Amino acid sequence: MLHTSPAPLGTHLILDLWGLTPDLGVEQMREVLIEAAGRAGATILHDSFHDFEGRGDQPGGFTGVLVLAESHISIHTWPEADYAAIDIFMCGDARIDEALEHILGALDPRRHALHRIGRGIRERRI
Amino acid sequence: MLHTSPAPLGTHLILDLWGLTPDLGVEQMREVLIEAAGRAGATILHDSFHDFEGRGDQPGGFTGVLVLAESHISIHTWPEADYAAIDIFMCGDARIDEALEHILGALDPRRHALHRIGRGIRERRI
Repeated sequence: MLHTSPAPLGTHLILDLWGLTPDLGVEQMREVLIEAAGRAGATILHDSFHDFEGRGDQPGGFTGVLVLAESHISIHTWPEADYAAIDIFMCGDARIDEALEHILGALDPRRHALHRIGRGIRERRI
Repeated sequence: MLHTSPAPLGTHLILDLWGLTPDLGVEQMREVLIEAAGRAGATILHDSFHDFEGRGDQPGGFTGVLVLAESHISIHTWPEADYAAIDIFMCGDARIDEALEHILGALDPRRHALHRIGRGIRERRI
């Protein structure tokens, strides 16, 4: 018979943010994400952040990833669109919603959209 | 009036894979993802891969991220569930479907599920 696996192996939050209230630089954003990982109880294995050169008065935005023992957190920003794309992917006992809550509180976006995806769910024959 | 932005700023592919045919180690998987980024025409800023210790005969799996100028590619594996979670997020002129095609060809999963998410699409007042 086909059986649907009851629990996902991990949870992946896809978070779109517009109009971040504080104008954070890459180092401040790195600190926000590190704190978010900490609140989730996740273990950071590595982090990598890169600032892009802007054009004229326009900042270039940045990209950053925290590699976790429980998966990852990433951010990519588009200052010209007043937009940031975040994803938070955690498995195991990590408290992903505490990470989410910290990020939303620290960035205080004018608007956001969240999609929650269970990863590793499948139908299997048993 | 409300206007729906016609094009997303980036495309995010959420890829679940079961039953990878070749039993790739972390270094081989890193090469597959680097080649995928190259086929997409993406620029790799950094990569970070970590192998987890297994228990007894059970391999521990691994986690890895390529940080791209065009966003990122990540993989997290659960050998005990015969499962790997990949996400490919690219913006700009990167040819994300060429990256996807390379990954599916190289990993040859018994089964996969793909979700395609447009990132940074919003309704805006004009």
